Amino acid sequence: MSRTAATFHPPIPEARRWLDGVTFPPDRPLINLSQAAPVEPPPRALREAMAGFLGDPSTHLYGSVLGNDELRAGLARNWAAHYGAPVGAERVAITSGCNQAFAAAVAALCDQGDEIILPTPWYFNHKMWLDMNGMRAVPLPVGADMLPDAEAARALIGPRTRAIAIVTPNNPAGVEYPPATVAALFEVAREAGIRLIIDETYRDFDARTGAPHDLLTRPGRDETLVQLYSFSKAYRLTGHRVGALIGSPALLDEAEKFLDTVTICPAQLGQRAALWGLENLDDWLAGERAEILTRRAAIVDGMARIEPAGWRLKGLGAYFAYLEHPFAMSSAEAAPRMVRDAGILMLPGTMFVPEGDAGGARHFRMAFANADAAGLAGTFDRLAALDWPLAGPQAGR
Amino acid sequence: MSRTAATFHPPIPEARRWLDGVTFPPDRPLINLSQAAPVEPPPRALREAMAGFLGDPSTHLYGSVLGNDELRAGLARNWAAHYGAPVGAERVAITSGCNQAFAAAVAALCDQGDEIILPTPWYFNHKMWLDMNGMRAVPLPVGADMLPDAEAARALIGPRTRAIAIVTPNNPAGVEYPPATVAALFEVAREAGIRLIIDETYRDFDARTGAPHDLLTRPGRDETLVQLYSFSKAYRLTGHRVGALIGSPALLDEAEKFLDTVTICPAQLGQRAALWGLENLDDWLAGERAEILTRRAAIVDGMARIEPAGWRLKGLGAYFAYLEHPFAMSSAEAAPRMVRDAGILMLPGTMFVPEGDAGGARHFRMAFANADAAGLAGTFDRLAALDWPLAGPQAGR
Repeated sequence: MSRTAATFHPPIPEARRWLDGVTFPPDRPLINLSQAAPVEPPPRALREAMAGFLGDPSTHLYGSVLGNDELRAGLARNWAAHYGAPVGAERVAITSGCNQAFAAAVAALCDQGDEIILPTPWYFNHKMWLDMNGMRAVPLPVGADMLPDAEAARALIGPRTRAIAIVTPNNPAGVEYPPATVAALFEVAREAGIRLIIDETYRDFDARTGAPHDLLTRPGRDETLVQLYSFSKAYRLTGHRVGALIGSPALLDEAEKFLDTVTICPAQLGQRAALWGLENLDDWLAGERAEILTRRAAIVDGMARIEPAGWRLKGLGAYFAYLEHPFAMSSAEAAPRMVRDAGILMLPGTMFVPEGDAGGARHFRMAFANADAAGLAGTFDRLAALDWPLAGPQAGR
Repeated sequence: MSRTAATFHPPIPEARRWLDGVTFPPDRPLINLSQAAPVEPPPRALREAMAGFLGDPSTHLYGSVLGNDELRAGLARNWAAHYGAPVGAERVAITSGCNQAFAAAVAALCDQGDEIILPTPWYFNHKMWLDMNGMRAVPLPVGADMLPDAEAARALIGPRTRAIAIVTPNNPAGVEYPPATVAALFEVAREAGIRLIIDETYRDFDARTGAPHDLLTRPGRDETLVQLYSFSKAYRLTGHRVGALIGSPALLDEAEKFLDTVTICPAQLGQRAALWGLENLDDWLAGERAEILTRRAAIVDGMARIEPAGWRLKGLGAYFAYLEHPFAMSSAEAAPRMVRDAGILMLPGTMFVPEGDAGGARHFRMAFANADAAGLAGTFDRLAALDWPLAGPQAGR
């Protein structure tokens, strides 16, 4: 047995293998809605700035384990403005992507045998990290509104529980957690003396304006709150691996051990690009958000065309739609078949739930940020044309 | 308790803090020999190539978890040529630096409670990773020649032992392991059904020519051998985080789970830069190696001046010299004092040995690649001028 033997293979590469040997005719190319990632490079001005950064020798050298001071300070200013609460640079660590921020936070908070409560459907890399560390992911099934209930979370807390970890706007379900939901989870965590870890990777594409929650203004934030962020989506920097971990200085002091040992420092060019983005791309990012909201509206339009066939929209927001399908087969079987029959790659819900959880079989995650509104219209054309056998009306919906 | 609470704080940032509040006069600036890192940026031609790569949209997007196919194939060709044995791209994974290659290999091979044998002095990040994973680093003290003995390693193998992990050329001791030493350790590992993990980060600066060992031509390599590499030193890419894990496809298949969860993919620009280096910088790298060998010779010259004061050279090679000091104090006390009294920052041997191991107290690691030959001459001037109290002649040398 090894650490990695305790978990499953990563879903994204597995899904990519479904494309092997499938040919897509020119008039019906693959629509890849599997990964939450911009498909365009960063804006030209940022690319030009990055070329300039290559002329600075320090771009090519090791930096500090917790990230460059300027970027830590820059994100702290952004954070304070966004959440309406004082945040200093000493509360911000830069990581090699947001997955690594989660990994570092867990390493700094939990030991073998500890438990973290994850609403289901969950983000698979969170589950994988806990598996690989001998920790237990305690599933907290969401309600019909795709939201976790704070009292249900409280009931799951035991002597080994160290945190509740949520993602909002949610991956995979798209739903934007209301402030009251987030606050209730925070208070449950605070009262239990555990942490609330909030992955806010998709923060910049929230349909709501203003602070998405008030946790940074609440008593107990140092002992309770851990936030995770990614620059990958905001500035289209997925290939440069820059994320962040925001928490108490004591937490970051522990996380530093993990980050030093696993990567030494985040890549320097990505850090400089992220700082340039913070300082120059507010307006551009507002336009990106508007475009995502347009695509989101295209999902609503498209759903009207496939709802008669039995499809249901369970969650929608930021980069994701979570769809319930009407077919007489599990999404695990339907997903590779959809590549062949419809030229659409989406991840099945089974990749986001505990083994044996029946809910996943009925769902798909659509990472719709990858397609423009016209491409999304084409997606719904293809979904509407599927003539697969339907499940009966009592198929567990 | 948490994972990170099980280990110590990273030595490099700790040593950097010794500089706080110390002023260095202009005629005696700080000589920083603490970290094994080039202080110059990559050669101009590579920097220009990197600027060009920024024009390719895919440089900014996610890549494959195990690295880009072209780089995997490129390093496989390099590996085959260097070690004189067939190596395919499917045996090469690209990682975000060599520390991450070690972390991924261990996660793919070991479980909580397992043991890995590490010659001491060891590389501290190896020890830290095992601590943070509830695994035991079993110290194998090296001999007076700074080499581990294969029979001594065999005697340490127990039911939970999963690997012997070595670094050659060695960090911190500089010594280049003879082929016979490496082969004997491999055979001990093979016979015991465990792995030999070889960190070859400093391979390109070995004073010897030709293959440094013949392990890739031996039976059992798939089940026994794991190699680690870094592009950081060869092409001065420390700030871009690119390393590699070379092993059986089955091992890489497991490591993929860890790498996906911890970083998703290595930074794209660094990968492209590494490939360009492999394809274009052989001659340049030969010149870099020649320069390092010149610096190495400067260490030998310098030692002649401080040996009368009781200093001893214990190991020398690639980026490091390992020095035994003559003073009546531990290196842990002497290292910060040397910053103040001599303007030299070196890591004390105590950072490379198990707690309570007396050997570390007598040693310093000098990361001499950071200084040119003139700077090294100045280093020895300053060391020769130290008038600290000497230990008696029987101080355990």
